[in-house]
Amino acid sequence: MALKHYYDLMSQPCRAVYIFLKLNKIPFEHRPVALRKGEHMGEEFKKINPISRVPVIDDDGFVLTESVAILKYLAAKYNVPDHWYPQTDFKAQARVDEFINYQHLNTRINMAMLFQNLAILPRLRNKPIDWKKVEGFRKGVGITVSQIDQYFLKDNRPFLAGDDISIADLLGICEIMQLYACGEERFIESNPNVNAWAERVKPKLAPYFEESNVVVYKVREHFMKTAPAQPKL
Amino acid sequence: MALKHYYDLMSQPCRAVYIFLKLNKIPFEHRPVALRKGEHMGEEFKKINPISRVPVIDDDGFVLTESVAILKYLAAKYNVPDHWYPQTDFKAQARVDEFINYQHLNTRINMAMLFQNLAILPRLRNKPIDWKKVEGFRKGVGITVSQIDQYFLKDNRPFLAGDDISIADLLGICEIMQLYACGEERFIESNPNVNAWAERVKPKLAPYFEESNVVVYKVREHFMKTAPAQPKL
Repeated sequence: MALKHYYDLMSQPCRAVYIFLKLNKIPFEHRPVALRKGEHMGEEFKKINPISRVPVIDDDGFVLTESVAILKYLAAKYNVPDHWYPQTDFKAQARVDEFINYQHLNTRINMAMLFQNLAILPRLRNKPIDWKKVEGFRKGVGITVSQIDQYFLKDNRPFLAGDDISIADLLGICEIMQLYACGEERFIESNPNVNAWAERVKPKLAPYFEESNVVVYKVREHFMKTAPAQPKL
Repeated sequence: MALKHYYDLMSQPCRAVYIFLKLNKIPFEHRPVALRKGEHMGEEFKKINPISRVPVIDDDGFVLTESVAILKYLAAKYNVPDHWYPQTDFKAQARVDEFINYQHLNTRINMAMLFQNLAILPRLRNKPIDWKKVEGFRKGVGITVSQIDQYFLKDNRPFLAGDDISIADLLGICEIMQLYACGEERFIESNPNVNAWAERVKPKLAPYFEESNVVVYKVREHFMKTAPAQPKL
């Protein structure tokens, strides 16, 4: 039985798993879960994942949640090139682990919440943008980008965990695309080191990076047309 | 050169690393970093970790941050019993990975922020407790505990990732102690399944669990004596 992948490309960890599956030619069945329609909250999906989150894989009955766990599992099972997640060199492995654990409470929370507060929640709740919250998450994004610059990419390290691309870079680049989705890409573009890293990663994920981000560009286009001007705080 | 461990036992991931080192008889040099004095923000510590966070290890020049990365590195390098983090069985490994990635944005953020908002920030900022925020994190804690019950401990699973204790349980139990530190332990005690899990884990970490939590009990004692009554919202 083929591997099933439950996902929505609007979710950044789903895009990371999607790109990884495609790039490494791992065959899978598409099981789209439309977040905008609330399908993840429905009874049918809850039978797969009671926590109502994507991505999820079902590998012949072995159901697994959490993008990092999924990427590591796929890397081990399908014997993908070692640079994605070093299987035996535990120092190289530790460098990848360092970033993929860092990202949850840093890149992920700040960039996802900035996007949510600018582009999603006001429409969902039919309320104006809470600019104070937005400024809080902008501050978090600024700190995160400077930590990536000064810690993870220090000493001219070309990728987040070493000399070659790994699942750390894949997860990182998928998270920062949330900034593009809400016109906040200046945080990346104004940091030459982080921007150069991003431009180094994207072509390594071609053509699936662009393919999986089509929905992000659409959201961006709509947001840029309709976003209200920010009042003076 | 011995392994150096930079830590403050007031930090729950530091306690997890401390207990792991002690239990597995891994020799280390103590490098206490007093968070309450802001030592993590000082120039000296920033030379070790520019991101100003604990725990950190320095293994003969190999400096590593992030508790999960540290625990995995120690498990691999010191060849500890496989149940802590399975080294070759990638399905068993995936189950541990699932929880340790889940915890950041669930147990960790909700329990840590509930504690911060009740016991730390009001004193630090000399402001009254923000009960609306507290209620928000209480809601998050409630959801998290029910997800642990219904997903991670489903089908009578005795530990978070399987039949034996792993670093998932170690990280989990250290996080929930933040609830005890601010008198919010009813969230655990009112859930028989999660409470039974906690009582199953603690003796497996003896005597280092109690030893590392002395500071938590002190904070609790002070908090319970001085905490203001909650007004009606």
